[in-house]
Amino acid sequence: MKAVTWYGKHDVRVEEVPEPEVTEPTDAIVRVTLAAICGSDLHLYHDEIPGMLPGTVLGHEFVGVVESVGPAVRAFKKGDRVVGTFHIACGHCRACRRGDYHQCERGGVLGYGLAFGNLPGAQAELVRIPYADVNLRPIPAGLSDEQAIFAGDILTTAFGAVKNAGLRPGERCAVIGCGPVGIFAIQSAQVFGAAKTLAIDLIEKRLALAERLGAIPIDAGKSNPVSRVMAETGGEGADVVIEAVGGSQTLELAFDLVRGGGRISAVGVSAEETFAFPLMSSFTKAIHFHLGVANIHRDIDATLALVAAGRIDPTVIISHRLPLEEAPKGYRLFAERKATKVVLIAG
Amino acid sequence: MKAVTWYGKHDVRVEEVPEPEVTEPTDAIVRVTLAAICGSDLHLYHDEIPGMLPGTVLGHEFVGVVESVGPAVRAFKKGDRVVGTFHIACGHCRACRRGDYHQCERGGVLGYGLAFGNLPGAQAELVRIPYADVNLRPIPAGLSDEQAIFAGDILTTAFGAVKNAGLRPGERCAVIGCGPVGIFAIQSAQVFGAAKTLAIDLIEKRLALAERLGAIPIDAGKSNPVSRVMAETGGEGADVVIEAVGGSQTLELAFDLVRGGGRISAVGVSAEETFAFPLMSSFTKAIHFHLGVANIHRDIDATLALVAAGRIDPTVIISHRLPLEEAPKGYRLFAERKATKVVLIAG
Amino acid sequence: MKAVTWYGKHDVRVEEVPEPEVTEPTDAIVRVTLAAICGSDLHLYHDEIPGMLPGTVLGHEFVGVVESVGPAVRAFKKGDRVVGTFHIACGHCRACRRGDYHQCERGGVLGYGLAFGNLPGAQAELVRIPYADVNLRPIPAGLSDEQAIFAGDILTTAFGAVKNAGLRPGERCAVIGCGPVGIFAIQSAQVFGAAKTLAIDLIEKRLALAERLGAIPIDAGKSNPVSRVMAETGGEGADVVIEAVGGSQTLELAFDLVRGGGRISAVGVSAEETFAFPLMSSFTKAIHFHLGVANIHRDIDATLALVAAGRIDPTVIISHRLPLEEAPKGYRLFAERKATKVVLIAG
Amino acid sequence: MKAVTWYGKHDVRVEEVPEPEVTEPTDAIVRVTLAAICGSDLHLYHDEIPGMLPGTVLGHEFVGVVESVGPAVRAFKKGDRVVGTFHIACGHCRACRRGDYHQCERGGVLGYGLAFGNLPGAQAELVRIPYADVNLRPIPAGLSDEQAIFAGDILTTAFGAVKNAGLRPGERCAVIGCGPVGIFAIQSAQVFGAAKTLAIDLIEKRLALAERLGAIPIDAGKSNPVSRVMAETGGEGADVVIEAVGGSQTLELAFDLVRGGGRISAVGVSAEETFAFPLMSSFTKAIHFHLGVANIHRDIDATLALVAAGRIDPTVIISHRLPLEEAPKGYRLFAERKATKVVLIAG
Repeated sequence: MKAVTWYGKHDVRVEEVPEPEVTEPTDAIVRVTLAAICGSDLHLYHDEIPGMLPGTVLGHEFVGVVESVGPAVRAFKKGDRVVGTFHIACGHCRACRRGDYHQCERGGVLGYGLAFGNLPGAQAELVRIPYADVNLRPIPAGLSDEQAIFAGDILTTAFGAVKNAGLRPGERCAVIGCGPVGIFAIQSAQVFGAAKTLAIDLIEKRLALAERLGAIPIDAGKSNPVSRVMAETGGEGADVVIEAVGGSQTLELAFDLVRGGGRISAVGVSAEETFAFPLMSSFTKAIHFHLGVANIHRDIDATLALVAAGRIDPTVIISHRLPLEEAPKGYRLFAERKATKVVLIAG
Repeated sequence: MKAVTWYGKHDVRVEEVPEPEVTEPTDAIVRVTLAAICGSDLHLYHDEIPGMLPGTVLGHEFVGVVESVGPAVRAFKKGDRVVGTFHIACGHCRACRRGDYHQCERGGVLGYGLAFGNLPGAQAELVRIPYADVNLRPIPAGLSDEQAIFAGDILTTAFGAVKNAGLRPGERCAVIGCGPVGIFAIQSAQVFGAAKTLAIDLIEKRLALAERLGAIPIDAGKSNPVSRVMAETGGEGADVVIEAVGGSQTLELAFDLVRGGGRISAVGVSAEETFAFPLMSSFTKAIHFHLGVANIHRDIDATLALVAAGRIDPTVIISHRLPLEEAPKGYRLFAERKATKVVLIAG
Repeated sequence: MKAVTWYGKHDVRVEEVPEPEVTEPTDAIVRVTLAAICGSDLHLYHDEIPGMLPGTVLGHEFVGVVESVGPAVRAFKKGDRVVGTFHIACGHCRACRRGDYHQCERGGVLGYGLAFGNLPGAQAELVRIPYADVNLRPIPAGLSDEQAIFAGDILTTAFGAVKNAGLRPGERCAVIGCGPVGIFAIQSAQVFGAAKTLAIDLIEKRLALAERLGAIPIDAGKSNPVSRVMAETGGEGADVVIEAVGGSQTLELAFDLVRGGGRISAVGVSAEETFAFPLMSSFTKAIHFHLGVANIHRDIDATLALVAAGRIDPTVIISHRLPLEEAPKGYRLFAERKATKVVLIAG
Repeated sequence: MKAVTWYGKHDVRVEEVPEPEVTEPTDAIVRVTLAAICGSDLHLYHDEIPGMLPGTVLGHEFVGVVESVGPAVRAFKKGDRVVGTFHIACGHCRACRRGDYHQCERGGVLGYGLAFGNLPGAQAELVRIPYADVNLRPIPAGLSDEQAIFAGDILTTAFGAVKNAGLRPGERCAVIGCGPVGIFAIQSAQVFGAAKTLAIDLIEKRLALAERLGAIPIDAGKSNPVSRVMAETGGEGADVVIEAVGGSQTLELAFDLVRGGGRISAVGVSAEETFAFPLMSSFTKAIHFHLGVANIHRDIDATLALVAAGRIDPTVIISHRLPLEEAPKGYRLFAERKATKVVLIAG
C-alpha cells in the first residue's frame, strides 16, 4: 500500500510499504479515507523528536472505514466509518481506569516513533489500530470526513483546554493565538457559554475568521492586548485564558491577561525546557494553571456530538486538500506557513 | 405613590399608598421603571397562598433607579440603574454563607405576604429593598429595562434549573413546557452547550418560538414525546430533562424521557402536595432529581452577562406592555392565558 | 464443580454443575475463594425477581484467583488474586464511555437471571467473568479476602451513595439504617470528611457498632430522629442524608431530616413501585435527590485503596463464615435476620 | 490600650496606642483574647514588605469577644466569641459575589501596611473589623481560643490548598514541608480522604509529629523523596502534591513527585520573583498547578466544624504561649526558628 514515510529532516516520501495486519485480538485495520498533517508532525519534519527510524509511517489524524477486526473487537465491524484518536490507550491500566487516557501506561501516538510506542501512522491507505474498541469512534450519520477528522486530535485538544480551565456560562475567555487550535478554542469557548471571547493574534486573516466565529478580535501588533482585555472586562482581566501558541512570551502574556482567581489553560507546544513562572504576582492573584497534552478519549464523544449538531464547524481551518501522493508538498506548504491546515485524500 | 394592591381572589387594585422609607442602614429605595407580573403572582390572584393581608403591595420582578440608600449601603448610590432579585437574602446567615441564598434564614419574597417576610412588593412607583448590597445588581451598560428585568427571577430560574441538572457541552436536553420559563430553559440549554434541545409543548405558537431559538419542537398532542425523544437520542433518552410546567403528569413524563444515569431538574410550581415518584424504575436507571425554588443570587451575574453579550434574548416572551395603572387588566389577561408575559411600565 | 443453585422460593441447593469455560477472548475464569450472600440475593430467595430459571448459579459478591484467561485479556493472568464487580460492563458502549458502567448496554448482574444477562453466579468454585479487564480488579498486596470482597458490591455502593450526594468536608451526614450498607455509608461519610455522622436505626447492637465507628447513634424507637438531627445541626437539618433501608417510610424520613438546599442519596432497595414524593415542601427547600443502583467500576479503585490504607474496615459487618456447602443455611439465617452478613468459603 | 507595633527591621515594640472605634455602620470592635504571630509576619519583621509606616499595629490571626458593633451589623452583638479572617472582604464587590473573597476589590490584610489596606492589626487589646458580618465567625460552643484561632488563617490556608488540588477519597497526597501549614495540610488531606499522606521534611521532630497524625514520614536528608514517593505509589507518583515551603527548590520537587495528570497546590510564600516551570516535562504529564493566597471565607465554616468535631486538632503546632507584652521575644524566637508557633495571650 501507499504510505507517507519519514527519512529525516525535511525528507518525507510517499512509497509502497507492506499492508498492516491484525496481530492482536483487539486490533482493527482501518482503510483511511482522509488524513491530516498536524502541527505536531512539523516537529518530526524538522527532526526535533528523538526516536524516529527511517521509513516510519507518519500521521495521527485520520478518518476511514473499518477493513477488518480481531476476534475481541465488539464495537466495530467491517464497513463502519470511524474517526481515530491520535493517542492510543489500552482502556484498563491504572491511568485509563481513572479516566486519564492520555497517561495510559501502555499507550502511544500513531506515527511518532520509538518514544511514543513505535506505532505506524495513518497517512497511509491502511492503518492498524490497537485496542480498537477504545481508540475508534463511529462517525455520526451525516458527517463528512472533513467534519469528523479533527475530533480525534486538535478540535478535542482545544475543547479539552477550555474544559480544563473550567469555563462557565457568562465568563470572559481570552484566546492567545488564532491558528487551528486557537480557532477551535474560540468555537469551544462559545459552546461552554462564554459571554465574551477575546481573540488575540497578529495576522489579520486569522483575526477576521475569529471575528466571524463570534470573537472580539484583538490585533496584538496594533494595540496592547493587556489594555484591550482589561477594557473589555471592566478592568478585571479574563476569567479564563487559553494559550494556543507555545513558548515563554505568550505564556507570560497569559498571566497578564487573567483576572485574580482566574484560570489559564495552555495547549501550545513549546520547544523551551522551562519558562519563568511569575511566582510573586501569581501568589497574590491565586491562579489555576493547566498545561499539557489533551485527553482525547474523555471528550471526543462530546465534540462529535457538537459537530453533528452544527454548533462547531471544524472545516473552517482547512486551507489545502491534496491527494495522499502529494503529502511531501503538503508538509512543505505547512512548514513554510503557506497552509493553515492540509488534509490528504487517501481513499 | 401608586401601587398594585391585593384585596382577595381576583381583586387586584391600583391605589395610592404611603411611600416606603429607608428604615435600616442597609436599605435602599428604588424608583421602579418596569415591573412584571410573574406566574407565581397568579397563585396570589387565585388566593391560593395563605398569609396575604388586604392591601398588600404585589410584585417581585422589577428594574428601576436607586432613589436613596441607607448609610451602610456601599455598592449603590442614587441614580444607579438596578435589577432586583425576587427573593431577599441577608448575605451572612449560615445558609447565605454557604451560597444558599434561596434558603436565607432572614429572607423573604417581595409582595408575597406574611409567610414570606411581609415585604411590600415592587409593582409600585417605589420599593424598599432590604440588604440592598446583596439584593440588587447594577444593570450592564446598554441593556434596556426589558432586557434586564427577568434576570431577577424567571430567566435565572431557568438558567439555574439547567445548571442544577449539570448539563454539559454535547449533551441532549429535553424541556417540558414552552411557557416563559421553558423558553428561557431552552436558551439556557444552548448556553450550556446542548447538542440537541428538544422542546415539548401542546401549543403551536410556543413550539414555533422554541424552534426559532434553536430547539427541535415536539408537539405532544400530535406525536408521542417519549418516542420522539428516543428517536432523537439513539434510543437512550435525554441526558437532562427540564420540567417547566408543574404537576404529576409532566413530572412523570420527565422520568420517561431521561436516560439511565441522567438528570431531571424541575422548576414548575405545582399545587399538588405529592407525586408518585417512580421508585422501582428509577432505581435501575439511577436518576438524579432536583426540585425547587431558584437561587437567584448565585447565577444572576452570569445571566446578566449573557444577556449583555446577546447570547440570551429575554424580551422574546413579552406579549403585553401596560402602564402600571392597568395592572388589573394585566392580571386578568395573564390569568385567562391571553398573555404570555405582561410588563407594567411604572416610570 | 460445586455451586449454589436456585430452584424457587426458599429453595437454594448446593450441587455439581459443569465447570465454566472461556468462550470469548475477553473472558476470564476465576477460582472463587470467598463469596458472600448479598441483601439483593434475598429477593431471589423470596422469589421476587422474574426471569430466574431453576438451576441458576447464584452469587455476585466474590474474590478469587484467576484460573485462565482468553487471548484478549491484558490486565490479568493465571494466579492473580482478584475481586469482581457485581455488575458486568463491556467498557466501550455509549454508557460505559461516559463512565456510566451501571448503565452498560451489554451489561448484566452475575447470578441474577434472564432479566440481568443470564450470567451464572459466583457462589461456586469457578465463575466466568466476561470482559475481564473491565470487571476484575487486582487485590492490593496485604489485603485478605474478607477485606477485599465487599469492594465489588456493598462497600462501593455505600461509598458511591455518599459521593453521589456530594458530601464535602465539614458537613453533617445522617444515615438512615445501620445494616451492612448503612455501616459502610457511615465509614464512607467519615472518609469524605463529615464533621458529624448521625446514625439512625432501631436495633441497639447496630447502633453500638455505628457509634464505635465514629457516628452519633440515634435510636428511632427511643427518640424522635427528626428532633435529634435538628438538635445536632443547630436546627438546620443534615446537609446530606443517606437512605439505606428502602421503602416509603424511610424515604419520607429522609426529606424531614435534610436541610434546605441539601442532598438525599437513596440506595435502599424497595419493593414498592412508587412513593409519595413531598412535592410542595421540597419545592421551598430545593432538594437534590439521587436514587439508584451503584456504579461500582467508577469507585472500586478508591474503596480498595481506602481499605488497604486501613481507613475503612469492611470486615466489621461479617457475622457468619460458612463453607460453600452450607450456603442453604446461610441463606436461611440471613433471611431470618439472624445473620448480618454471611460469607461462604469456597476455596 | 496595649498593642504590638512595628518600627522597622527587627524592631517590634509593645506600647500604648489609642483605642479603635466604630467608624462605619458595618464595623465591629473586638476585644482580643488570643493573637498569633504568623509566618507572614516575619516578612514584616525582616522589613521585606513595602508600605509599612512606623507605629503600625501588627497581627492578623486572632480570636476575641465582640466589644461593640455598628448599627448595620446583624450577625454579631457585644459578648459574642469570634474568630476573624486574616484578609478583609467587603462581601459584595464583583470578586466577592463570585466567591473570590481573597480577591476583594475593597479588601486588605489586618496589620500589613499601606499596600494591604492600611488596617491596624490584631496583636492588641482591641481591633476594629470592617464589614464585621463578612469577616468574623462565631466560635462553635466548646472550642477554646487555641482551637479556634488558626481557622482564620493558616489552618484554612492548608485546607484550601488541599481543596484547590481537588484531593478525592482514596488518593495519595504528598506534602512538602512539615511546618505549621504543612502539618495542617496533612490533617486536611486525611479529612479529604487521602489513602496515603506522604510527609516530606528534613527535621526529625516535625516528621515525628507528621507520623503521629497519620502520615508516612520521609526524611529528605536521609533518603531520596522522589524514590520514596514512587515506591509508595506503585511507581506512579502522588495524585496530589502540596508545596508548603516556598521557593524554587521545593516547587521543582513537587513536579518530580506528582503523577501524570496529577495536581500541585502551592501555598508556600516565596521571596523569588519567578521559578523555572518545567514546561516540556509537564506538557507530557498534563499537570494542574494552583498557586496562591487562600480564600479563607470560602472554607472557614468547614474548618471550624471539623475542629469542633475533633477531626482536626490545630493546637499541636503551638510551641510558645506568651503574654502580649512579650511579643518582641515571641517574634525573635520565631525568627530564629526556636519556636514553631507563638500565640500571644491578650485578655
